[in-house]
Amino acid sequence: MCESGEDAAVVGAVYDRPYSSRLKPDHILEVDSSGRVLKPTEGKPSAETLLHLAIVRTLGAGAVLHTHSVWSTILSDYHIGHGGFFIEGYEMLKGLDGVSTHEHREWLPILENSQDMEALAVETKRALEHNPEIHGFLIRRHGMYTWGKDLAEAVRHVEILEFLLESVGRRQMMEPQY
Amino acid sequence: MCESGEDAAVVGAVYDRPYSSRLKPDHILEVDSSGRVLKPTEGKPSAETLLHLAIVRTLGAGAVLHTHSVWSTILSDYHIGHGGFFIEGYEMLKGLDGVSTHEHREWLPILENSQDMEALAVETKRALEHNPEIHGFLIRRHGMYTWGKDLAEAVRHVEILEFLLESVGRRQMMEPQY
Amino acid sequence: MCESGEDAAVVGAVYDRPYSSRLKPDHILEVDSSGRVLKPTEGKPSAETLLHLAIVRTLGAGAVLHTHSVWSTILSDYHIGHGGFFIEGYEMLKGLDGVSTHEHREWLPILENSQDMEALAVETKRALEHNPEIHGFLIRRHGMYTWGKDLAEAVRHVEILEFLLESVGRRQMMEPQY
Amino acid sequence: MCESGEDAAVVGAVYDRPYSSRLKPDHILEVDSSGRVLKPTEGKPSAETLLHLAIVRTLGAGAVLHTHSVWSTILSDYHIGHGGFFIEGYEMLKGLDGVSTHEHREWLPILENSQDMEALAVETKRALEHNPEIHGFLIRRHGMYTWGKDLAEAVRHVEILEFLLESVGRRQMMEPQY
Repeated sequence: MCESGEDAAVVGAVYDRPYSSRLKPDHILEVDSSGRVLKPTEGKPSAETLLHLAIVRTLGAGAVLHTHSVWSTILSDYHIGHGGFFIEGYEMLKGLDGVSTHEHREWLPILENSQDMEALAVETKRALEHNPEIHGFLIRRHGMYTWGKDLAEAVRHVEILEFLLESVGRRQMMEPQY
Repeated sequence: MCESGEDAAVVGAVYDRPYSSRLKPDHILEVDSSGRVLKPTEGKPSAETLLHLAIVRTLGAGAVLHTHSVWSTILSDYHIGHGGFFIEGYEMLKGLDGVSTHEHREWLPILENSQDMEALAVETKRALEHNPEIHGFLIRRHGMYTWGKDLAEAVRHVEILEFLLESVGRRQMMEPQY
Repeated sequence: MCESGEDAAVVGAVYDRPYSSRLKPDHILEVDSSGRVLKPTEGKPSAETLLHLAIVRTLGAGAVLHTHSVWSTILSDYHIGHGGFFIEGYEMLKGLDGVSTHEHREWLPILENSQDMEALAVETKRALEHNPEIHGFLIRRHGMYTWGKDLAEAVRHVEILEFLLESVGRRQMMEPQY
Repeated sequence: MCESGEDAAVVGAVYDRPYSSRLKPDHILEVDSSGRVLKPTEGKPSAETLLHLAIVRTLGAGAVLHTHSVWSTILSDYHIGHGGFFIEGYEMLKGLDGVSTHEHREWLPILENSQDMEALAVETKRALEHNPEIHGFLIRRHGMYTWGKDLAEAVRHVEILEFLLESVGRRQMMEPQY
């Protein structure tokens, strides 16, 4: 479920339903910027390839990662009424590209989920154009998208954002600050 | 604690009380559709073999898996008063056989636990006949049953349903949506 | 932190403060029923050896295990006002020696913690004589003791009780049953 | 992110932003008591080196460790209004150097986070001089610092304090004691 988009060479998720622990490296396809499979020659890119491509095209991202974690799933549902939420004041925010202080206010937009991938790709493009400074977004009851200029940065953004989602989620389950 | 039921060849759990991390592959017995042990020649199938067989017979399942997780245990207790609960709107539902959209409403029935396996097998058969479209069910304060046309599908259903149980459980521990 | 007490041969925890992940097998001492070290020839048995011995002597246990887990620590604090709590209705209770149905009511006593090991050993003996049918007990904000006729059974009891503690702890953090 | 400060030989964190799982042993720099890199010859010590040095100088610590965990992050936010919180009555406190009973009251101060490392080092020095008996402190929404006379002791303090933070955090999410 990753895309590495240097020069229109894009890697996309694949084969059937690789939700499981059985996902293997050769289940990952490489596709070009139009979504055509480059290698291996067999296999069908996942339906969400359009979203990966929308991120590559709109932001010039070099790699896109998509995760299905418990905390992204439930926070995307909890905050849907506000269209997203801010993560603010955490040191770990400095792990996001271009952020140099914890006094940063990161907006994490939430899109409604849809099986119409073309419509969802349009929504994604709109959200990114509206918030070009963000580092990721959630899809309701579905998961997170994040990206980077290369795969290493995208992996770091996954680690940072998943840590922050768990922290924010557990924090709000405590009583309000006294 | 699995059964793979092709052509009445069924694998059932075994030996004493293998609840522990010490469960090993050769603790798994293969039994036929009447519950008779095919191999190894020694060992006694677990008392719950009757439930596995009820699922194989009623639904034609090729494999049955039974798990004892924390989230299935406590949600089966929390929702017992309604006889089950719905899991709805989650993308991960698409990992269940035949589900192609998150706009799916999955009913997860809960049976009262019992040590009378014949009675519980009858209850299981009844629940499955009543809800032929389900992918799993819970037994109160006990655990989950799920299945598939083969072992790979049953394993995927375990992963999907356990993820959803944790998500649903943690989600309901947050305040109601604002 | 285990004792295996066949024929007064007892294994006890050791060396300084092995709370950490650095505990190694040869940090475990073998001691006799009077607490004297059998092997290795060096090393000092932990102060809690007296508690292990009290369990061996009072119940004839063949092995004693002591764990410091998060759930035993916090539940031993939460329920101290009642001197313990019941675990009831869970299938996993069947993993405890002599329990053949989930319709079992397991009392888990809680002792106040103390650094006076002789006094605590007396309290332990009293609690065990009062509740000879129990399979474990907690010490407040400290941890759990469990045992078995041999090390394998004691290990199984650790797995069963720790699972039940997490289940009971998470269950009570949900709203009351509706 | 550790420093081992024997004889002004100090090890400090390094290279860019090693928040991720990709941190490797050779990302760790050795610096002297003025923060100058001893080896390897390349690499830049992390900005937080000043805090590590403040601890080494004020307390004579032989090793300093800094962690970013979920529980330290959220408890440092929850309790900021009181400038810290006590951890009291837990057996595991005995894993802290010089503590011989659970009847110990450990103060865990919380400092406001800052990107001005010189100011934060001054605050750290002040907090340590004010509380010379502590074993660690938190920085708000950032993480924990702890130390020891050598690396082994500092590692043990990380394990003890992280265990206690999780226990204290989960305990306060239960209802108040009845």
